[in-house]
Parts: sequence; C-alpha cells; structure tokens
Amino acid sequence: MVDGKINEIHGWAATKSGIQVEPWSYKPRPLGPNDVEIKIDYSGICGSDLHTIKCEWGQANFPAIVGHEIVGKVITKGESVTTLNEGDLVGVGAQVFACLKDDCKECSRDLDPHCPHMVFTYNSFYADGQQAQGGYAEAVRVDANYAIKIPAAIDPVYAAPLMCAGTTVFAPMLRKGVKKGDRVGIVGIGGLGHLAIQYAHALGAKVTAFSHSPTKKQQATELGASVFVDTSNKEELDAVRGSLDYLFITANARSNQYNEFVTWMDYEGEIVLLALPEGQLSFSPFELVNSEVKITGSLIGGKNIIKETLEFAAKHNIRPIIERYPMAKVNEALEHMDQGKARYRIVLENATSSL
Amino acid sequence: MVDGKINEIHGWAATKSGIQVEPWSYKPRPLGPNDVEIKIDYSGICGSDLHTIKCEWGQANFPAIVGHEIVGKVITKGESVTTLNEGDLVGVGAQVFACLKDDCKECSRDLDPHCPHMVFTYNSFYADGQQAQGGYAEAVRVDANYAIKIPAAIDPVYAAPLMCAGTTVFAPMLRKGVKKGDRVGIVGIGGLGHLAIQYAHALGAKVTAFSHSPTKKQQATELGASVFVDTSNKEELDAVRGSLDYLFITANARSNQYNEFVTWMDYEGEIVLLALPEGQLSFSPFELVNSEVKITGSLIGGKNIIKETLEFAAKHNIRPIIERYPMAKVNEALEHMDQGKARYRIVLENATSSL
Repeated sequence: MVDGKINEIHGWAATKSGIQVEPWSYKPRPLGPNDVEIKIDYSGICGSDLHTIKCEWGQANFPAIVGHEIVGKVITKGESVTTLNEGDLVGVGAQVFACLKDDCKECSRDLDPHCPHMVFTYNSFYADGQQAQGGYAEAVRVDANYAIKIPAAIDPVYAAPLMCAGTTVFAPMLRKGVKKGDRVGIVGIGGLGHLAIQYAHALGAKVTAFSHSPTKKQQATELGASVFVDTSNKEELDAVRGSLDYLFITANARSNQYNEFVTWMDYEGEIVLLALPEGQLSFSPFELVNSEVKITGSLIGGKNIIKETLEFAAKHNIRPIIERYPMAKVNEALEHMDQGKARYRIVLENATSSL
Repeated sequence: MVDGKINEIHGWAATKSGIQVEPWSYKPRPLGPNDVEIKIDYSGICGSDLHTIKCEWGQANFPAIVGHEIVGKVITKGESVTTLNEGDLVGVGAQVFACLKDDCKECSRDLDPHCPHMVFTYNSFYADGQQAQGGYAEAVRVDANYAIKIPAAIDPVYAAPLMCAGTTVFAPMLRKGVKKGDRVGIVGIGGLGHLAIQYAHALGAKVTAFSHSPTKKQQATELGASVFVDTSNKEELDAVRGSLDYLFITANARSNQYNEFVTWMDYEGEIVLLALPEGQLSFSPFELVNSEVKITGSLIGGKNIIKETLEFAAKHNIRPIIERYPMAKVNEALEHMDQGKARYRIVLENATSSL
C-alpha cells in the first residue's frame, strides 16, 4: 500500500458549538488504493460550515474541521488510481465517498449524493469509523472519484466556490432542464444566489433576482438578472405574480414566506429549496391546488454534475465574486461571514507550502 | 334569442351552514346563444358539496344548490350551439364556463379551470351577476363547451361520478404522464381513491393503496391495487419506504402526515394533493432536500380532460361503485356521505320527468 506524504494533518477545528476554530491536527486514515492525498491551496467558506459548527443542524462531532469547497494539488495517489496523477489540480466538494456500484439504487441513477454509503466531506464517518475532516487544513485524503480536475480556464481560487455553491445551484437547473427562455427567479443574492443568477443567465433563462437589499440591484443586474425585485416593495412583487417557471430559494427564508413564493409562480412552476431553514415549511393546500405549483428541494450534486458545473463555468465565464483571507485569519473570515457581510463568497488561502 | 323550456328550476338548496337542503326554486339566467339547457337525470354527491354547504371553505352564498357531477339530456340549445343537439346525453362537471379565448393565458394552454373568467358549477357567479346553481335540481343551463357528451358505452348513472371525481384523479395522471410500470400510491379509498386506483391500474402502473381501514383491502385489490397498506401497520409502511414515483392524496390527511408521505417516495417522486384539508400543510425542509420529492396539487380538469376521462373509462371499463338515492331523499344521502359511510360515491336520481 502506498503511504501518504503527510502523516499528521494540521488544520483549524471547531471544538465546541460556536463560530470559533482553533489549530488542531489529526492522523489521516490510511491512503487506500482508490484514494488521493491533496495538498490544499484554497478552501471556500460555505453556509453549511457555519450551520454545522454552530450546531444548528444538530450536535456536531467535535473536533471538526469544516470546509467543503477545496482546491489543491494531488501529492500522492493510491495504487489503483488511474484518472489522476501527482501534480493535478483538483477540487473536492461536499462529498468524499459513494459506493458507485452498478447495483446501488442511488449510484446507478447518478444520485450518488444519496448513496447509503456516502460520506460527506466533514462531520461524517467512513465505514472504517474514522471521521472525515474538511478543508480548513493543509491537506485531505479522499476517494479519487471525488477529486475533480479543475479546467485550465478557471483560476484555481475561483474554482473553490464552484465545488459546493456552484454545484448546488447548477445541479437542479441541469436535472430539471432549465432552458432558453425559461423564467427563473432567484431568492437571495449571496454565496449561492450570485452564482445561480450567472448559471441561469448562461442557460438562456430570463432571470429575476429577489432580495431585501436594494443595494444589490446593480450587482444582480451585472451578473445577468434582467429584473430585480426588492422584496419589501409591494408594487415590484405584484408585477411578478404568476410569472415564473422556476424559483430557486438560496436564502434562509422564514417558513411563512412560502405561500408568498407560490404567488410568484406560473401554473405548474417549480420552487426548489436549496437552503435549509430551521423549522417546518408551511403551505396553504388551497394555494398548491389552485396554482398546481411544485415545491421541492435539491441536495448538492453528484460527481458527474460537479464536472459539468466546472466545464459550464469555464465555457461561459462564470466566476464567483470572492473575498480572500489567509487561512491563519479563518476566525476573522468566519465572523465576517456569520455577520452576513461576505460579498459573496470567502475563500481561505494556504500560504505557499514547502511540500 | 331561444327561450329555455323550464322557466323556474326546482331543486334542493342549502339555505344555511350545515348538511340540510330544502326545496327551493330559482329563475334561470336567459339561455345565451352558446348555452344549453339540460334536464338532469343524475347528480353525484362530491365531498366539495359538503365542504361548501358546511362553510368549511369559507362562507357559502345561500341559497345554494350544490352538485357538480351532473348527467342529463339537452332539452334546448342556444342558436350558436353546433356541437350538441336536443336529446343528447351530456355530463357537467365542476365548471360551467371559461372564456376559451386564444389570448387567454390560461385557456390557450388548456388550463381552462384557471381562466380568470371561469365559473364553477355552484357557489360561483357569472359575469352578469347571477349565481350558478348546481345539480341537485331538475335542470341546469350551462355553456355548451361544458356539457360533455357521454360515450354510449357508459351507463349514464355511472358517468356522473366521472364528471368530477374521475376527472380530478385522471387529470394529473394524464398531464404528468403516468405510464406503464410507474409506481403509484393512492391515499384514501373513497369517492376519489377508488377511481384513482382504476385509472392508474389501467394506465399500466403498479398501484399501492393506502387506507386506515383494513376492511377495504379486498375491494382495493379487486379495483387494481397490487399492494394494500394499512396505514396503522408500521411494518407495512416500512416495506413501502422510498418506493413510489407518484402519490395521489385523495383523503383529508392531517397536516402533520405529509412528512410521513415523503418517506414513501423514491427520489424526485411527486406527491399530488387532490383533497383540500383544512389548515396549513407542514413539511420538513431537510426531508424535501434529502428526498428531492416534489409536492404539488391539481385542480379538477378542463373540458378536454373531462372528455379524455370519459373516453378512457369507456375503453378500459372503469366504473365508479355507487349507491343510488332518489333526489327526494337527498338529505338522507348527505347524512350518509357526511358520516363517511358512502361506498364509494352516491348518485342522486331524478324521477322520470314528464318533459
């Protein structure tokens, strides 16, 4: 069996509920024949990272190194890995393992994020019992299927947010077949939303951006929105009623806002939940029956969708707008993000490594 | 202008909230050039009739003659009616008018039940201000587009419940493309459910019937269900988890049951609400995102779908199971229905008329 190069991985771990992380290291699991070891250059900060370490989605398994928008270079590969070589620039998203077997109900249908054996990039456990640790670190070992090559056209630092945020918004557009002329609404102009506008626009859709921050109008327009709706303005809301084919919810909308969302949709339109608000969602059965609107959700994207997300971004010049922080200032970055001030995605950078 | 033959229509009207109706008559609106006058032979009792007169869907406009599963003979036609003749056997469902214009956003897409000018068969108003009155009566005048010819293969008394119950369950199957091999669940084996089983089975689907009444198992099986699930039996429920492509909710499920329904669905499956329970529906955002299940509703069916519903029933020998009551015993019938005892649909019959 091939040995990895880094036998103690140093990173920044949360050790208790909150938004603080601290230096911590762990011994990585043995490098399996299908694994690669990646020296991390960049790690985006995703809303999920904060939900996890704040224990908003349930008690986290501390110590936890979060971060699932990883970009780095392969420094070691297991003996069975044929698709990657040392030195390759790769990205890792929110998932690091699935069985990918033909007789898996989920993997056989390209639904690998739902595989019963799936392992999330952090706060999740491998079959051998070891906890997966994420990207706020110097390195990570993952299954080679989940180390996706970054197209040469994309500057690596910009690729990081595409690994989760980009994939999460593009996956349902791709699978539902959003196409030229479709009328697409995006709720929330943040880490996910500012990418969703670009992907939908590049697909040829007519994009309407919804935000309670009128200051984001110019930015939304520059990203490709043809209509901007200030959600505190009743006239602007009235003007969009009954007009959308798809609505992607990228913000933590309050549970009672969903009946309002339904009124924006054309008949049989589809509302897709991408954020995970706390509490239950509540809908009027009359509204659903009268509108015939569909309400659904979408969970990240499988390995093939990540590839398409990157290739589509390369081809259509889709790039996140980012703020860069050195890894050593991760706590400052987390606080900035937690205060809702990030415009629109933060990427942590490791200092040039001696490896 | 052609005069109608019945200048005072006698029927049974609710005059206050409750399940009692009493003899009452009204002067019908003038017979317009596109209208037909129908002598009613049969009128099914729909759950909507009870919801309306009990004011469970809001205050009703009393006096109200309900009933929107009407079968009878055309006795007079307006001067512009070319598709029907006197003596034709026709059915009327839950709708008696839509504009049907090419520039109507709804009608132009075969969504005539959503036309802004649509008139429901009862508790609804024409543009001239007159209230539409329904089928618990000797006659009714409606737009000829909403008087649908009954295929000769169907005994008229059995056609009545197809006008609303049959159309309501078949419309979403048709529009969503339910096909051979699809795994379809039906919740509730009642007026709608016992027809939904037959339509889904005839489309080639594998049908699972869900009921809290195990006594309905044999009936559900005879109607075409290949699996019956007693919803109070945890083992039977566990056996269906993750297995359905579609689930049609024909019963007034409690709002907190919807998260349970989601667990029965395969990824990206679709839950279609056909009944209108009181209160708000409540869903876990995690369940929606993890399952990628769609939740939607469906409102009756337009005139073209009613025609397809009848033709499909004729071709595949789909028939409601009915209990027959003379119109004069309508109050007894309403009480029987209100107590949940109808097996499975009640049809009121007018005595042979002298007309």
